[in-house]
Amino acid sequence: MKRNVLIIGAGGVAHVVAHKCAQNNAVLGDIHIASRTLSKCQAIIDSVHEKGSLQQDRHLQAHALDAMDIDATKFLIRATHSQIVINVGSPFLNMSVLAACIETGAAYLDTAIHEDPAKVCETPPWYANYEWKRRDACKDARVTAVLGVGFDPGVVNAYARYALDNCFDSVDSIDIIDINAGSHGRYFATNFDPEINFREFTSTVWSWENNAWKSNAMFEHRQDWDMPVTGKVTTYLTGHDELHSMSQNLGVPNIRFWMSFGEHYINVFNVLKNLGLLSEQPVRTARGQEVVPLEVVKAVLPDPASLAPAYTGKTVIGDLIKGIKGGRTQEVLVYNVCDHRACYEEVGSQAISYTAGVPAVAAAMLIANGTWDIGEMANVEELDPAPFIALMNRMGLVTRIRDAQGDRVLDPQQEAPGKTAPARLVNY
Amino acid sequence: MKRNVLIIGAGGVAHVVAHKCAQNNAVLGDIHIASRTLSKCQAIIDSVHEKGSLQQDRHLQAHALDAMDIDATKFLIRATHSQIVINVGSPFLNMSVLAACIETGAAYLDTAIHEDPAKVCETPPWYANYEWKRRDACKDARVTAVLGVGFDPGVVNAYARYALDNCFDSVDSIDIIDINAGSHGRYFATNFDPEINFREFTSTVWSWENNAWKSNAMFEHRQDWDMPVTGKVTTYLTGHDELHSMSQNLGVPNIRFWMSFGEHYINVFNVLKNLGLLSEQPVRTARGQEVVPLEVVKAVLPDPASLAPAYTGKTVIGDLIKGIKGGRTQEVLVYNVCDHRACYEEVGSQAISYTAGVPAVAAAMLIANGTWDIGEMANVEELDPAPFIALMNRMGLVTRIRDAQGDRVLDPQQEAPGKTAPARLVNY
Repeated sequence: MKRNVLIIGAGGVAHVVAHKCAQNNAVLGDIHIASRTLSKCQAIIDSVHEKGSLQQDRHLQAHALDAMDIDATKFLIRATHSQIVINVGSPFLNMSVLAACIETGAAYLDTAIHEDPAKVCETPPWYANYEWKRRDACKDARVTAVLGVGFDPGVVNAYARYALDNCFDSVDSIDIIDINAGSHGRYFATNFDPEINFREFTSTVWSWENNAWKSNAMFEHRQDWDMPVTGKVTTYLTGHDELHSMSQNLGVPNIRFWMSFGEHYINVFNVLKNLGLLSEQPVRTARGQEVVPLEVVKAVLPDPASLAPAYTGKTVIGDLIKGIKGGRTQEVLVYNVCDHRACYEEVGSQAISYTAGVPAVAAAMLIANGTWDIGEMANVEELDPAPFIALMNRMGLVTRIRDAQGDRVLDPQQEAPGKTAPARLVNY
Repeated sequence: MKRNVLIIGAGGVAHVVAHKCAQNNAVLGDIHIASRTLSKCQAIIDSVHEKGSLQQDRHLQAHALDAMDIDATKFLIRATHSQIVINVGSPFLNMSVLAACIETGAAYLDTAIHEDPAKVCETPPWYANYEWKRRDACKDARVTAVLGVGFDPGVVNAYARYALDNCFDSVDSIDIIDINAGSHGRYFATNFDPEINFREFTSTVWSWENNAWKSNAMFEHRQDWDMPVTGKVTTYLTGHDELHSMSQNLGVPNIRFWMSFGEHYINVFNVLKNLGLLSEQPVRTARGQEVVPLEVVKAVLPDPASLAPAYTGKTVIGDLIKGIKGGRTQEVLVYNVCDHRACYEEVGSQAISYTAGVPAVAAAMLIANGTWDIGEMANVEELDPAPFIALMNRMGLVTRIRDAQGDRVLDPQQEAPGKTAPARLVNY
């Protein structure tokens, strides 16, 4: 049993994580929020109080922290008696925060892969460049570290694992489909940090095809899908974190990630990229200033958090899995639908932040109660998906399944009542 | 008779001005080039020697100068015995350089209106905000100052004056049409300083309609024209310097400026503008750096000078004038066609720089020989256009006229042989 949560970061996802931790603080204990800017932490705390999100009257406190400073992070973990750290700060921080957890014994959770600010799109599998180098250190210290436990990566990894275990004898392909059918009413905005958002799309698009990495260009491959809620929707093959663990852990020959983009988004993206304005490499202005163009683009774009009040529509994110069951080919879609406005009403965020934040808190609760507290490092597809899916169903992220039997809520206990699974599953 | 030229600036237009001064240094005397960056001046001098542009073996020298420093500019004017200053530096410098000329007695020429870096698109007429406030000072000091003597403004002002004097009893409208039918083969580039280029298009488009200022939005009014060389071509109503003097000096009720833009240019422009990346107001990045977005856009775009080697195609710029002659309505187009590649072969520049630089040197020669040395401030339409047009015909910018009699080279002496004009014409 682990108690007390330290949330690192004070952006859109941290906002949701704080609300959801507060709603479940009978299990999670005290909540601390730390980021470089104390006022941003305090604003989240104010929002938690305004919405009345606290389940019990327990500690909820803001801290100023530069999480690149491992000693400062260790000190704060110890001072707050935090046994679980939910790192939803910049992905540049991951390795520092993980180091602090390994040295203090706190469990570690994040929602996005580690990045080096100076490098874009490194050699696949990405997890092998940073996170997996600390596997042995986690095991030696008996530290639970669950990597990438947002929606995608995170929930989509669990969906894949669930379908492999319950719906197929063998799987040929997993297509992760991420649709934002919402509208923020602005000329252009990204749904999370523009710097991180654009970095996803400015370099090689890696996909997993026939058990090997294949490099593609952004917007090179287009695919229309018939999805619940949206109907026919256009997506593009995109590089994404979860491919870099699922390809190594699931034994599935084809795993691809598809994201919906409107023509307007693509046009703006292409103009900025072709002009060199999405570059992370500094340029020198005529006045002699050294400037990173991407940081300037970020500065002129709307703050993603500012989009929430006007956001309408839904996100639809899931895994379309094709394979064989009982000698017949079949297709299963496991997915979630999330409504921007409903998220805003509940916690003051849009659905992109909500779908990333809720799974991290669900994971924290599974660590707190011991279910996922495995004492080593894991990606989500290595863990038992059933309690995770069942818990999220009760926390506001309901999983649905569409297969030959129809389209319905997925209750893992009902669908596979006899099934029991170890906390950490054996890899394929 | 005035001698010795100080060229201020070392950009694309300065490059052409230096070559053309060198080709005519028997009349113009010594040539000095001054800019903040000495190496850019020296590169121009190297190019003049490489092309063998010097007509006579006379002084051609580079100087480092911050032309915002009036005393330093005065010192250089005196030290070099320059009696003519051709200011083709940044338009932010104009008032400082003019002050140095007034105080030293040197004649002043520029090719673009003064701008304040912090202001975009001030109240019309623009010349009244800065230049015309120095009219009396010029007159008192007997200093010749010819404003805006590039192609547009400049030559197009002379074309208007010529047509008014020689082709019409009364004129109803002047449409200045600026077509670049060239191709530089790059994804996107501006043909001169991107900062100045975009500033032209980011605010109110002023036009002169029915003897009054009318404000329009950029890309609001589209007009197709049947032009020589290009045939049918699409243009957009654009704000431009010359409207702000011609409207006050010519007594013509409608004067408009139209510029050709391709759909690709408009798309890139609109994306950058809508995102706020063309703003001259600083923004603060997440790292706390204060940055002017427009300066970053400038830094990532190609240096306009770098376009010249690959530039193909032609510019077509002229005045379409409609009015009455002998009781009948008629239409006259006075225009020039300039070939990008021919300019590059002659002086190493593209046609946009060439058409701006040659008129300034022609004007300097008319000041040197006394024809335009009027000892006061004037816009080009206030001066006798005949010797200017005739001189440019011999310097590589040939004027053509298209009217009911056909399409032919315009030789002012032949077309109006009996006509004599005072150096400074009386305003309408």
